[in-house]
Amino acid sequence: MPEKRYLFTPGPTPVPPEVLAVMAEPVVHHRGPDFKVTYERCLARLQEVFRTEHDVLLFTASGTGAFESAVANLVDPGERHLVVSAGNFGERWADLVGAYGADLVHLRLPWGESPSPDALAAELERSGPVEAVYLVHSETSTGVVADVEPLARVAKEAGAIVVLDAVSSLGAVPLETDAWGIDVVVSGSQKALMAPPGLGMVSVSPAALAARGSSPRYYFDWERTQKAQRKLDAPFTPAVTLVRALDVALGLILEEGLQDAFDRHVRLGRACREGIKAMGLELASPDEDRSAVVTTVRAPEELDVKSFLLDLRDRLGVQLIGGQGEWAGKVFRIGHIGYFDLFDITTALAAVEDGFVHAGIPVDRGVAVSAALNAFEHARA
Amino acid sequence: MPEKRYLFTPGPTPVPPEVLAVMAEPVVHHRGPDFKVTYERCLARLQEVFRTEHDVLLFTASGTGAFESAVANLVDPGERHLVVSAGNFGERWADLVGAYGADLVHLRLPWGESPSPDALAAELERSGPVEAVYLVHSETSTGVVADVEPLARVAKEAGAIVVLDAVSSLGAVPLETDAWGIDVVVSGSQKALMAPPGLGMVSVSPAALAARGSSPRYYFDWERTQKAQRKLDAPFTPAVTLVRALDVALGLILEEGLQDAFDRHVRLGRACREGIKAMGLELASPDEDRSAVVTTVRAPEELDVKSFLLDLRDRLGVQLIGGQGEWAGKVFRIGHIGYFDLFDITTALAAVEDGFVHAGIPVDRGVAVSAALNAFEHARA
Repeated sequence: MPEKRYLFTPGPTPVPPEVLAVMAEPVVHHRGPDFKVTYERCLARLQEVFRTEHDVLLFTASGTGAFESAVANLVDPGERHLVVSAGNFGERWADLVGAYGADLVHLRLPWGESPSPDALAAELERSGPVEAVYLVHSETSTGVVADVEPLARVAKEAGAIVVLDAVSSLGAVPLETDAWGIDVVVSGSQKALMAPPGLGMVSVSPAALAARGSSPRYYFDWERTQKAQRKLDAPFTPAVTLVRALDVALGLILEEGLQDAFDRHVRLGRACREGIKAMGLELASPDEDRSAVVTTVRAPEELDVKSFLLDLRDRLGVQLIGGQGEWAGKVFRIGHIGYFDLFDITTALAAVEDGFVHAGIPVDRGVAVSAALNAFEHARA
Repeated sequence: MPEKRYLFTPGPTPVPPEVLAVMAEPVVHHRGPDFKVTYERCLARLQEVFRTEHDVLLFTASGTGAFESAVANLVDPGERHLVVSAGNFGERWADLVGAYGADLVHLRLPWGESPSPDALAAELERSGPVEAVYLVHSETSTGVVADVEPLARVAKEAGAIVVLDAVSSLGAVPLETDAWGIDVVVSGSQKALMAPPGLGMVSVSPAALAARGSSPRYYFDWERTQKAQRKLDAPFTPAVTLVRALDVALGLILEEGLQDAFDRHVRLGRACREGIKAMGLELASPDEDRSAVVTTVRAPEELDVKSFLLDLRDRLGVQLIGGQGEWAGKVFRIGHIGYFDLFDITTALAAVEDGFVHAGIPVDRGVAVSAALNAFEHARA
């Protein structure tokens, strides 16, 4: 095993030392005064980061659990719901909506495509009225970040509740929950929010709360959690350690400033893509500023992706990740969400170069690193 | 605020420093080799502590979430399910089973009662066949630990799946999942297992898996989690930090030895009760060895429980907890589950004495502490 580990996956992501440190503090009671202060501040900071004035409900669960809360609260069996997918997570949400017995309308786009408002409008025209439209902001499996504002507008105009998966985008890419009229935004602690996995959160508009249906639910029931949170309580013992960590991490994000954090992600994404292109490799994620969460690289024919990733991990201590679902074996992904700087990008690229050499694929050593260093704008333009 | 904090509630409970320390280590990827080693060992240790050869499914959720997995997997709407309650948690499980549309048979006993096998047999006689019987091992709201083996036998003989809430009992009081024929045992990380809150776990017998019904579920679906776990994977990003903590905590428990841990809980419970009785106070939880999880004390008429607990918390840094539901204002509770020793008991009792004095209720200072010190058997008999 190598002595140091580098976590360059799109979740879990590296956690700042200040955040790790608070988790070693003694556990406090969730109804005690120490925790209430943390809880209140954490919920307020979530609203700031979500850019919403509505409640952000906090669940001890992964992002999928938080997403299920939307489905469990909104779906009545037999009711029509529309899911737009263009990758693994969109397809998961379609499965989930189907599991709750909805009459699922699935606008299934090819992996890697960015959904267009016209395609959504056409699908809504065909389907007739739907109760809710489920969109993915950052499709982590492909690296595509959708232009979500016009999509939300189309869904809204059709009278639907808009639900957005912002698990890997929130805090990395601009998202205006209230201004863009997005009723439900789902996120998780372990991506750009720079905390460990284990907390999922959901912002809920009054319209979303009013649209609640009859599916059975208890742990993920919005009303139960909203009622308790408004009294600074939690309906069930929350993961107090993780809430404490999230609170510190959100403080760091707001100290940097959301705009500066978004800008940093754009600059890191550019540098990473320039490095990959300098190696003569092809991008599978779009070569555009919005694609600032994960850089997805098409593997050359001669590369065995699985062995390459295992080599990076076991020989160099560098954890990248391969493709999911239909992209398995065809791509590898470099995450740069959250607690990342230029030297994480150059380390990831240096590891990719070395892994290629080790796999017998000729590379001019340093070519990707140099390109990234040259491309990186150190200050916000 | 006092400088030190003492957490003497029945969950969350104090976490050993070795367990806190690992949470400050860098986050690892849940599909990387470091985590797989931890995950495999943690799942095996859970089987040891659960005393089962069947799968123990691990969910990122509170104990209630894990309990909901049992209900969501077992209940078909309209099917008859029987819940035995004698306190707050039993009643919560009745609500939960009802929320999934079961034809609920609720054997609702007075709070503080210990359910008898005869009462259960009589209820099953009245109700006719039921799909599942839900029992509470340690009713944390009252401090009663049920004699669960004969209850499980009665339920089994009636052909029901047996589901047991062992959230606050597992690791504190003897429980033989397989030997007693309990199909589903639900527990949580934050009680006797000495880890922070955020993980719920469920052992599932083949009969329980075969009895799965049609209620909608995704995150809490047993089959999805079982399939993934058997490949040392997790269907959704788990709270890796908490799994690491739980693994270390389980290691400590198994190092002490389950029998020695149970015995320690018995000796601590005895000492705590002797202290309370020496103050002339009345126990609401049974004065018996099995009642080793929480000592529930009837508040004297002249004590304002809420002010008393706030005083202990804010002036002395000692966190005890009041009654829930119909026992609110009538009792206070001292938890002694997990990472507890004699000096935690004497500190809790000294704080109770001081709080009484502060509330103007005369107490011979040291009387409870002395009684506990005298009663405590330092070594296992």
